Amino acid sequence: MFAFEITNSTPQAARCEKITTAHGQLETPAFMPVGTAGAVKALTTAHLEEIGAQIVLSNTYHLFLRPGVERLTELGGLHSLMDWSRPILTDSGGYQVLSLAARRKIEPDGVTFSSHLDGSKHKFTPARVLDIQRAIGSDLMMPLDICPSYDDSPEAVTRATELTHTWAETALANWQAEPESAYGYGQTLYGIVQGGYTEAGRSQSAKFIGSLGFPGWAIGGLVTGEPKELTWKLLAATISELPKTGPRYLMGVGTPADIVRAVMMGVDMFDCVLPTRNARNGTVFTSTGPLQIKAARYATDTQPMDPDCGCPVCQRHSRAYIRYLLNTHEITGLILTTMHSVYFYLNHMAQIRDAIRAQTFTEWAGDFLSRYEQPTPALSTGKEVSA
Amino acid sequence: MFAFEITNSTPQAARCEKITTAHGQLETPAFMPVGTAGAVKALTTAHLEEIGAQIVLSNTYHLFLRPGVERLTELGGLHSLMDWSRPILTDSGGYQVLSLAARRKIEPDGVTFSSHLDGSKHKFTPARVLDIQRAIGSDLMMPLDICPSYDDSPEAVTRATELTHTWAETALANWQAEPESAYGYGQTLYGIVQGGYTEAGRSQSAKFIGSLGFPGWAIGGLVTGEPKELTWKLLAATISELPKTGPRYLMGVGTPADIVRAVMMGVDMFDCVLPTRNARNGTVFTSTGPLQIKAARYATDTQPMDPDCGCPVCQRHSRAYIRYLLNTHEITGLILTTMHSVYFYLNHMAQIRDAIRAQTFTEWAGDFLSRYEQPTPALSTGKEVSA
Repeated sequence: MFAFEITNSTPQAARCEKITTAHGQLETPAFMPVGTAGAVKALTTAHLEEIGAQIVLSNTYHLFLRPGVERLTELGGLHSLMDWSRPILTDSGGYQVLSLAARRKIEPDGVTFSSHLDGSKHKFTPARVLDIQRAIGSDLMMPLDICPSYDDSPEAVTRATELTHTWAETALANWQAEPESAYGYGQTLYGIVQGGYTEAGRSQSAKFIGSLGFPGWAIGGLVTGEPKELTWKLLAATISELPKTGPRYLMGVGTPADIVRAVMMGVDMFDCVLPTRNARNGTVFTSTGPLQIKAARYATDTQPMDPDCGCPVCQRHSRAYIRYLLNTHEITGLILTTMHSVYFYLNHMAQIRDAIRAQTFTEWAGDFLSRYEQPTPALSTGKEVSA
Repeated sequence: MFAFEITNSTPQAARCEKITTAHGQLETPAFMPVGTAGAVKALTTAHLEEIGAQIVLSNTYHLFLRPGVERLTELGGLHSLMDWSRPILTDSGGYQVLSLAARRKIEPDGVTFSSHLDGSKHKFTPARVLDIQRAIGSDLMMPLDICPSYDDSPEAVTRATELTHTWAETALANWQAEPESAYGYGQTLYGIVQGGYTEAGRSQSAKFIGSLGFPGWAIGGLVTGEPKELTWKLLAATISELPKTGPRYLMGVGTPADIVRAVMMGVDMFDCVLPTRNARNGTVFTSTGPLQIKAARYATDTQPMDPDCGCPVCQRHSRAYIRYLLNTHEITGLILTTMHSVYFYLNHMAQIRDAIRAQTFTEWAGDFLSRYEQPTPALSTGKEVSA
């Protein structure tokens, strides 16, 4: 169950799409709030609906460990568990497993690792991660891949890319043989491009993965320590080799400005923990840049976090109240900052879509990038290992 | 700004009232969710409105320390800070200060204490706690009192009661001279009955406090370590000496069954951290008793926490999901259990009011008490010192 339609294109690479899944449609460019373990931290399913999330991202590795495949199956999958009726995308778990570093071993047929929770040993293979995602019931699945680090040797990067390619073929055949979830509806499998830190490596990987017949493509392995200028070059080298006939998902990226730049280059889907994690640490996104809400200067500031924001929090609560709640360690504060920042990201994407539809995106993006300062490191990664 | 009307009375002591404050009316018997530091932990103001809270309780001691009188005044008081338009009652802070034990010293004109946050020294006097509550802008204020412990000597209890009486007179005169908040609207001051752990002491205190002309009365010092049978005797000895012409508020009590028993005896208002604190620890209230939601037996239970509950959480989320969220330490789980349990208490009060209005309360209460098991210690106190 997957349909893909480009609804608006621009003379540049940016485009709007409608993606149809077994759990309804989403419009791109889209941001997927990160619900690593079956919940976006500090938000309820009702909150996600209230602020208009089209899709959420969850994590195969975390859900595999808890609640586990057996319980997930018994409970009817993650949509049922969360009572979330819209689309879900799941990471393959490859990134998380590989983040375990000393706790994992890469073999030709998969990755053996020890749980970060209890040290128990497990093996992920291309087939196994699809079976787990069938039990999760995600609409958009990811194959097992290997995500290198920027300080890995060229040999290690080459080996990671080769294994990622082999596993992509295995996963594609496995999915084509069994395209349905444990609950009888169709799922979709994207291919993941790796290729390391050279434009040539990226192009080759994109060309290979792009040729296999996946309905969409994820771009992995970026923002893993490389200089930012290089990131954009590698992204360009990737996208130029991918077909235009399906969505491109840039994994784990990024700041609002990063997203605008990537959309300009033809990326359609994003996920990142920046809005949620930073919100819990006291940094919220606003239309004029990140705001450190715990700062003393907001102690009696009766303005909303972002006076230009239409979110339910900015409609009623002041910086002073939210600062006070965060500084007194009230859980309520985490709810309010998270709701705002996720709304900010969702609204950011809606503005991008509107500009593309109005054929004003290039100007809109230039204006946005010129005024949107990024005191925090730009293109920060947003993946996380532990719950 | 205060009006009190008995809207329904029964041949027994239970009654329904309408209390009017500067921030609107509340119907009793009423439960006040505890927002110690200006937020009900894990709920937003919008949540409180959604589940129908009529009034919230907050704490003078905590708000005095943070954000402090100066900031509260600059921000327009607690209603403005929380964006809460309905009534607020504030504890005087006496209970919290006295909980500091080694950190405080009782003197004839007040209590000197060290902050639990930074050790800074402060003094609460009857006038000072009213000034703080004028800055908070609470609709229903409490005078400074001394709450003894069950293991205090009879002499200490007598002294506590005498000081409480003296301070009550001081506070009453202070309020009568200045009945308005820092924001220009009228506030109300209840008297607090103490009297220790003998029926005679309780009667005397109630008679004295009841004679001073307060518009309502709080009953303090119960559930502070005494046996439960004694609690009910002391409560009866208190209420029998209080006028019927104003609301009676039983401070810090209690379980759903405790509340039913106290309403039968003529209590109108309650506050307790049991629904909120227990919810965060994984015990939720249901129509058939407390439920330990983290227990393994709920791992695949698709029922709502309470199948008979009409709350927004029970309308959509399963025991399995909530158990999973709590066991994986997701903040989302705390929101869901808290919202449910506070709703449960509010709905419990609504059922009590309905039964009183229908003149079926005695039967309703008998039925409730016979079927509502209390595996957790009954009449547990619900006050807390630290945020």
